[in-house]
Amino acid sequence: MMARSLPLERLRVVLVAARNPLNIGAAARAMSNFGFSHLRVVNPYEVAFREAQSAVGAENLLKSAEQFDSVAGAVADCTLVVGTTAIGNRSPRQPVHLLPAAAGRIRRRLRSSPVALLFGSEKWGLSNEELSHCQWLLHIPARKEHRSMNVGQAVAVCLYEIVRPGAPASKPEKSQRASGERLERLTGILLEGLQESGYVNPRSESLAEEKLRRLVRRLDIDAVDAEVLLGMVHKILWKLRLEKS
Amino acid sequence: MMARSLPLERLRVVLVAARNPLNIGAAARAMSNFGFSHLRVVNPYEVAFREAQSAVGAENLLKSAEQFDSVAGAVADCTLVVGTTAIGNRSPRQPVHLLPAAAGRIRRRLRSSPVALLFGSEKWGLSNEELSHCQWLLHIPARKEHRSMNVGQAVAVCLYEIVRPGAPASKPEKSQRASGERLERLTGILLEGLQESGYVNPRSESLAEEKLRRLVRRLDIDAVDAEVLLGMVHKILWKLRLEKS
Repeated sequence: MMARSLPLERLRVVLVAARNPLNIGAAARAMSNFGFSHLRVVNPYEVAFREAQSAVGAENLLKSAEQFDSVAGAVADCTLVVGTTAIGNRSPRQPVHLLPAAAGRIRRRLRSSPVALLFGSEKWGLSNEELSHCQWLLHIPARKEHRSMNVGQAVAVCLYEIVRPGAPASKPEKSQRASGERLERLTGILLEGLQESGYVNPRSESLAEEKLRRLVRRLDIDAVDAEVLLGMVHKILWKLRLEKS
Repeated sequence: MMARSLPLERLRVVLVAARNPLNIGAAARAMSNFGFSHLRVVNPYEVAFREAQSAVGAENLLKSAEQFDSVAGAVADCTLVVGTTAIGNRSPRQPVHLLPAAAGRIRRRLRSSPVALLFGSEKWGLSNEELSHCQWLLHIPARKEHRSMNVGQAVAVCLYEIVRPGAPASKPEKSQRASGERLERLTGILLEGLQESGYVNPRSESLAEEKLRRLVRRLDIDAVDAEVLLGMVHKILWKLRLEKS
C-alpha cells in the first residue's frame, strides 16, 4: 500500500459541533481502520462520547481524543486546514477541490507538517465562521439531489481516499508553511490595526474578522514570511497607537 | 463526474444477515448520496429496518428495499456477484481484488448487466457458504491490525469508489454473462449428477456443494454457454437415472 510510508499521524481529524456520540465513535473506528490516530473534538458544550459503542476496535483512540472549545485551538499546530463541505462548487468564498484532488494535496502537506481536516455538525455542516479557518474546502462528489452525508461515512470516505492504493507518490513541499496558530495571530493583529485605523466598521466587525481570516488563509504564507509580516503589522499597530496617544 | 453515465440502477447492494437496523439505514443513505437505488436485504429472521432513523434523505429507498431469505434469491438476476471481505489476500478459495481494481471491474459489468455487491453481518462478515455465490471478492485496504469496518462505512467507501471521478472510462464487455439464477441452476443439476454418479460423498455433501458453487463461479460462463452446459448435464443426469432404474 503506497500510503504506508505517509506520516498519517500528522493528520488531525477535527469534528466540530458533532452532537451524536455514535458519530464520533464511528469516526474513531474509520480512523483506526485506515491508520489515523489524532481525533479532535470541538464543542461548546459537553458531549459524552468517550464510551461510544460505535468505536468498535478504536476504544483507545476515542479515549485519547482531544477536546477544544474553539476551532482556532484545534488547528493551531496545523499548516493546512481543510474544511469539508456538501456545497459543491457553489461557494464563492474559498476554493473547493473534489476529494480525489484534495487528498493529493493533503498527502503532499502531510510529508512536511500537520494537517487538520474539519467535519461540521450533523445538521448544519461547518458554519462560515468555522470555514474561515480553512485554506480551502474539500467536496465529496455526492449526488446533487442528496448531498448531505452521515459524518461517520464522510470521515470514512475521506480517509480511504487519502490512503487509497494507486495514488501517485508525492514529494514534500520545499518551504514550511505557517501554522494555524501563527495565521490566527496574524489575523488578530491585522484586525487590531484595521480597527485602530478606522478601516473596520465596528458594527460589521465579526463579518470583517471572518473575511480577514479567509483572506489570510488564501495567501498561503510560509513560516518565515509569517514572522516577517507579524513584525510589520506589530510595528504599524505600535505607530498607530502612538499617534493616538 | 465520469460515473454519471454509468447505469448505477443496475447495482444491487445486498446486506446479508445485518442485525442492526441503523446500519441498514446508513447503507441506504450512502446509496442515495452516490446515486444507487436497489437495496436488498437477506435475513432468515425479521429485522425491523424500514423506519431506521439513520436513512436520512433515503427513506423511500429504504421502504422499497427488497427482502430475500437466501443469497441465491437475492443475486438471481445478476451476472456478477462480488463479496466484500476483510480477510485481505489470505483467502485461497476465491480471487480477491483491492477496491480500486474491483470497482473498475464492477463498472465494466454494469454497462451490460446487473451486479450484486454483498456485505456480511456486523459480527462475522460473509460466511463461506454466502461467499460461494460470488465470482470473486473485494477487499477494502484497511490497516491489517484493524480490518473490521462498520458495514455502513464499508458501503459508503465502496460506492464512492465506484462513482469516483477520474476513473478511466470502461467499455462494455462483448458477451453477456450468465445470471446468478442460471449459475445456481447449473450448480444444482451438476450436484445431482455428481450424487447420482457417486462422486459426492453423502457425508460431505454441503461442503461439496460450496466447492462446486465456487468452481462454477470461477468459470465465468457466458449466457449462451450456460444454456449449452445445462443441456449437457441434463442429458447426462437423465442417462444416469435411466441406467439406475
